[in-house]
Amino acid sequence: MSFPARRSALRALLPGAGVDALLVTDLVNVRYLTGFTGSNAALLVHADGDGASRFCTDGRYRTQAAAEVPDLETVIERACGVGLAALAAKLSVERLGFESDAVTVDAHDALAEAADGVGLHRAPGLVQQLRAVKDAEEVEALRRACAVGDAALADLLAAGGLRPGRTEREVALDLENRMRAHGATGPAFETILAAGAHSAVPHHRPTDAELRAGDLVKIDFGALVDGYHSDMTRTLVLGPAAGWQRELHALVAEAQAAGRAALAPGADVAAVDAAARGVIERAGRGEEFVHGLGHGVGLQIHEAPYIGASATGSLAAGMVVTVEPGVYLPGRGGVRIEDALVVRDEGPELLTETTRELLEV
Amino acid sequence: MSFPARRSALRALLPGAGVDALLVTDLVNVRYLTGFTGSNAALLVHADGDGASRFCTDGRYRTQAAAEVPDLETVIERACGVGLAALAAKLSVERLGFESDAVTVDAHDALAEAADGVGLHRAPGLVQQLRAVKDAEEVEALRRACAVGDAALADLLAAGGLRPGRTEREVALDLENRMRAHGATGPAFETILAAGAHSAVPHHRPTDAELRAGDLVKIDFGALVDGYHSDMTRTLVLGPAAGWQRELHALVAEAQAAGRAALAPGADVAAVDAAARGVIERAGRGEEFVHGLGHGVGLQIHEAPYIGASATGSLAAGMVVTVEPGVYLPGRGGVRIEDALVVRDEGPELLTETTRELLEV
Repeated sequence: MSFPARRSALRALLPGAGVDALLVTDLVNVRYLTGFTGSNAALLVHADGDGASRFCTDGRYRTQAAAEVPDLETVIERACGVGLAALAAKLSVERLGFESDAVTVDAHDALAEAADGVGLHRAPGLVQQLRAVKDAEEVEALRRACAVGDAALADLLAAGGLRPGRTEREVALDLENRMRAHGATGPAFETILAAGAHSAVPHHRPTDAELRAGDLVKIDFGALVDGYHSDMTRTLVLGPAAGWQRELHALVAEAQAAGRAALAPGADVAAVDAAARGVIERAGRGEEFVHGLGHGVGLQIHEAPYIGASATGSLAAGMVVTVEPGVYLPGRGGVRIEDALVVRDEGPELLTETTRELLEV
Repeated sequence: MSFPARRSALRALLPGAGVDALLVTDLVNVRYLTGFTGSNAALLVHADGDGASRFCTDGRYRTQAAAEVPDLETVIERACGVGLAALAAKLSVERLGFESDAVTVDAHDALAEAADGVGLHRAPGLVQQLRAVKDAEEVEALRRACAVGDAALADLLAAGGLRPGRTEREVALDLENRMRAHGATGPAFETILAAGAHSAVPHHRPTDAELRAGDLVKIDFGALVDGYHSDMTRTLVLGPAAGWQRELHALVAEAQAAGRAALAPGADVAAVDAAARGVIERAGRGEEFVHGLGHGVGLQIHEAPYIGASATGSLAAGMVVTVEPGVYLPGRGGVRIEDALVVRDEGPELLTETTRELLEV
């Protein structure tokens, strides 16, 4: 879908929000609607069309804006949100929506003052609602990002990069460089590489600790490609797995498969969580699965929809989500298995393709 | 300064803000006050001391919180801000400050509902005010980060890494890996490596364009070390500089020296900007210096104080700021020179040490 088409889709949501224009100040939302990749921008999407809409960035990005956003009239100003709010009256806006889930209390004051007579109305989550369902170009970008992750991990394993004596930090950097070699801009987030007892820490940060034979090694990583994030976790064993490691891995794999199988258009997100969590609870390990099952992934590493026990809403075809149960035994080790999938009418489509079998390397 | 001492310093600001506790939800501010490095947390700093204060994070970070924040009672909850607001009444808080410059309009509603009878009051910028003046440990961390940047650039040049035929992207990645080799967690921000006409784009993103003999090459980069960011820009020439390149570099260098010389405790930030900008304006190039002169740098790459023509406030001893004038000739090339310095009574102290002479490599 082109950027003008995305703005049209947003326009269709404006009447329901009771506004005749939306002031988009969240930078990721601006990028989604325009393609602009700089660090300061805002967008006023007018119900009357692109001709009545305005894009704003500052002087550092004049050239970049001309190249990336050729199809919207551009205002050059440092305070973009305030600058566009001040234009609302001239653009005949009567009810100006703002992103109340992104605009701070202080920034709202500044917008209200600048809007000068034009009413400001809360309109949270409209662009996120669009972003939750990926168009074909976005699915392709996510597919490329996931393929980079798969290829980098395969390279790491083929090169014997996961071996006793290397530090967590070395292996994480090695993996990140292999993602870059396959075309990633960089890692999608700080790579989690956790060996031995560290694997029991859900969000462990790599240290100078050395990998040892017999360690569980949990690797949660992703590639950033064309602005889109991949996300995958695999947990391996250095050498032959002990019985408890094998059992833990099998339990998480069963839960993960149940979670994936529950992905369908219309499925309640809490029910999807329950499908996986139930497997772990029935094994008496519910207390050790301390986080939600998954999340949407796209221009942000975490975005709508959220899949968890207390999350609300339902899935739709075209959403791209992770399924990532984990069981963590403090002081011993933990296992998490995570894939990214597209929700489809005909059943979920895996974007991450690395085997989910327990690898002993 | 220790984390308890930073919290004490914050307590001293609470009466002036008219509150008897501050709910800190900005993650960088939480890190500054506690040392916690996870991705979800909040902190309630009570005027009565650490005993009456509370830290909150979620289950993923239970182990990490115990290690990083051993000295505060910890609440485990997913919605940390709301969770701590709900505790305010039990902690005998009557006037609860919140970070109105960080809390969104929607989040404020949730806090107000949770606080249930305890008054919520705007208290923006208190922690940022403390953070603007670095303590000795912070200056040392920034010194280490800047030294990593210097060393990585020196390595790149010594290895002949800046040469015709390599792409902007290759050179940027090479430089980032050299920073990692010197101990950086990663780059402090997306490295700007801009050759030839691209150097005229202030915030250019590296492309697959090849460097060519005669190009101006602008490199704006930094290292992340222990959570602190370095920031430096140098503009070099591949081979002997042409006359216009030499003149442009000399002009920017003169402006940059004037800006550095103007750094002093008590100096008005707009006057510091003017000291550098005046040099460029008098050369008839004021229109081509399209951004502010500098910014504070620390736990964030951009933080208070800001040094620009329309910025307000004054410098204080112990602030760490950048000075980075640039002149950009669209289609031809641009030059920016940037250092990070500590404001000192006895004159500014340079943290970035790479030569400011024009390098022809």
